[in-house]
Amino acid sequence: MKAELISAGTELLLGEIVDTNAVYLSQKLAQIGVDVYYRHTVGDNLRRLVEVLRLAFDRADAVIITGGLGPTQDDITRQAIAEVAARPLIRSPQAVEKLREFFARRGRILSDNNLCQAEAPEGAALLDNPYGTAPGIRLEHEGRVIFALPGPPTELQPMFTAEVVPYLLERAGQRGERLYTRSLLLADIGESTVAEVLSDPIAAQTDPTIALYASPAQVRVRLATKAAEEQAATQRLDAAEAAIRKLLGEYIFGVDEDTMEAVIGRLLRERQATLAVAESCTGGLIASRITDVPGASDYFLGSVVAYSNDLKQVVLGVASEILSTYGAVSSQCAEAMAEGARAAFGADFALATTGIAGPGGGSEEKPVGLVYLAVADQRGVEVQEQNWPGTREQFKRRVSQMALSSLRKRILQTNEQET
Amino acid sequence: MKAELISAGTELLLGEIVDTNAVYLSQKLAQIGVDVYYRHTVGDNLRRLVEVLRLAFDRADAVIITGGLGPTQDDITRQAIAEVAARPLIRSPQAVEKLREFFARRGRILSDNNLCQAEAPEGAALLDNPYGTAPGIRLEHEGRVIFALPGPPTELQPMFTAEVVPYLLERAGQRGERLYTRSLLLADIGESTVAEVLSDPIAAQTDPTIALYASPAQVRVRLATKAAEEQAATQRLDAAEAAIRKLLGEYIFGVDEDTMEAVIGRLLRERQATLAVAESCTGGLIASRITDVPGASDYFLGSVVAYSNDLKQVVLGVASEILSTYGAVSSQCAEAMAEGARAAFGADFALATTGIAGPGGGSEEKPVGLVYLAVADQRGVEVQEQNWPGTREQFKRRVSQMALSSLRKRILQTNEQET
Repeated sequence: MKAELISAGTELLLGEIVDTNAVYLSQKLAQIGVDVYYRHTVGDNLRRLVEVLRLAFDRADAVIITGGLGPTQDDITRQAIAEVAARPLIRSPQAVEKLREFFARRGRILSDNNLCQAEAPEGAALLDNPYGTAPGIRLEHEGRVIFALPGPPTELQPMFTAEVVPYLLERAGQRGERLYTRSLLLADIGESTVAEVLSDPIAAQTDPTIALYASPAQVRVRLATKAAEEQAATQRLDAAEAAIRKLLGEYIFGVDEDTMEAVIGRLLRERQATLAVAESCTGGLIASRITDVPGASDYFLGSVVAYSNDLKQVVLGVASEILSTYGAVSSQCAEAMAEGARAAFGADFALATTGIAGPGGGSEEKPVGLVYLAVADQRGVEVQEQNWPGTREQFKRRVSQMALSSLRKRILQTNEQET
Repeated sequence: MKAELISAGTELLLGEIVDTNAVYLSQKLAQIGVDVYYRHTVGDNLRRLVEVLRLAFDRADAVIITGGLGPTQDDITRQAIAEVAARPLIRSPQAVEKLREFFARRGRILSDNNLCQAEAPEGAALLDNPYGTAPGIRLEHEGRVIFALPGPPTELQPMFTAEVVPYLLERAGQRGERLYTRSLLLADIGESTVAEVLSDPIAAQTDPTIALYASPAQVRVRLATKAAEEQAATQRLDAAEAAIRKLLGEYIFGVDEDTMEAVIGRLLRERQATLAVAESCTGGLIASRITDVPGASDYFLGSVVAYSNDLKQVVLGVASEILSTYGAVSSQCAEAMAEGARAAFGADFALATTGIAGPGGGSEEKPVGLVYLAVADQRGVEVQEQNWPGTREQFKRRVSQMALSSLRKRILQTNEQET
């Protein structure tokens, strides 16, 4: 099956936002074995959107348009589909009702503008949007199908999963090989080292293929194979994964959609252990990542973001001699923060960060990028010094990842019965 | 002048990499006043690249292709241009010489594969690439121009600046108008309401144009005008901004690259006031956003992420009767958290959130999405109840934005001398 993607939005053509939807849809379609040969971006211009849609519709089995379903005059996707399919736009009373409910639940008033979001070309199915006002559209026309999905990723992604994937899979039928992938996620190792360690398997790769992708303090090794049967693919991926684990197993913290914070959540839950955090330079990012995981309240007690020295003393009990002798950015302070958080919160594990995120605040002795990470548990405290110059955001992201990685290793050293 | 962009590369269509070149080129072309109406992505397939290039060449004054200039068989951009322009590929002796030098300097041997990188359609100019092996290509043909640039951003960006921008500016002549934009950032108002309030100006828009973009708990009103002189553009943007401020001024918290957290930082700094935060359902995101701003340590004392009730009592001093009578998600608890944080940290302002992020933990009485926001200062505490069902991430993002917005309004009510 061939699909073509169209992203609608002048802000995309002006480079004002990055088209993450295109990346998401491309990945997901590849995974279910749908070929994408062309992707287009057009602005909020009816004539040009109609032109591109007509061309895509002529070539592909399925066309997926993202964006342009909002309530404003700029939002022209509905009209474009109606024009290409030569069908009138019809307002759906059920969709109007859903809009009313959506607004009522939020205590807002439905404006006339929003009513156009309940319109679709005659014969189209409206796709439920639990996370926003714009329903999606599915129109079967001349043996092909056009989908229109809302632009916000938080609305598009659940709708794609719930409405588009099952439809396309059924339509593609049982024929057809599809792509199976598995990603191994590594921390505490750089992309070039991974490339060097895997140079032989990478040079010899035929099936599965091996590719590397780097993001802050994380490397993804992606294995991919095509197969008609899941079992055959799984066997090949298992064999390749085993070979890579032999070489790099100690760095692998998760697979596929895992995140370091979700992995830590699972480990803590298995051990019925609790966690407290004391953050200085990461400024709340570690706590925010941990609480991105649903159910985090089962093991996460809380965090103190102690930007001022006062707070470090009062809430975390860091001795004033430590601050005056070694300073707030010191291994001694990190240690005291972790111990203090563990005691104050009554937690099994505590994690602490203190460092210089920059751009200001650095000195020759303590440069921007310097950071101390501490993990405390019943056996004591472990502190490490690291140095990661970069932008403030890069620094926060990398330090949070490294801190969580140290915590993960510390938890793994703890027997499940011990806590 | 109209340009069309083509990104070549199967890895783009598979969603394995994000097309940052497209974003870069779109931004830069907009800045120099070149219109981009279409952008395309195609894989490493000669027939399909030729098809897209032909279409783009028919419509645009300039076509810019990125990628496909490497030394492998997958790299087909040279052939595609040659085919569309019906010219043979010629190998340039000077380009071969440059390749030899490039490899020699790095102690590597020039392979036969690489020689194809010295080829271009007859009559084309080769563009110098100081940062890689692939020269760019510029071909003037039938009164239009085709550029081919290498895919790696570190090679593409300097080449675009040095070779493409001056050429396009000269070709556009002295009329050379460019685009000037200004964005007004609004909070506490939905996109559809903004659209309704601005329906007259939007309907009447000619110059500057007005467009709306929504993101979680924020609407951006973007004004754009073309002018040869900056002064003329500024006058027009000023006038349009003034008209919109008359209608929606109370909702505008910033312009252009402002963020709510940066605006709050400026307000606090002006007043030499300090801030403390007590977060439950936002889980550290508010602190993390505040500390994304360089220099935040000047006014931000810290945050307590109090996920457990214990912490709310011990660190923030929330009375156990409040928790037992009203529960942790209540206006009484939000109020006590804000007051407690202000007292514990000795801060001028304190912000507190407590709510149910979901997906679990909701009840009929207190559904997922319910949240209480409190702002405390010397004059007292202000609490509001809101309801924002959605994904966990949407919820955290929206609530953090609304909480910061309440804080901003509260700070603005405070005279600069008062604190």
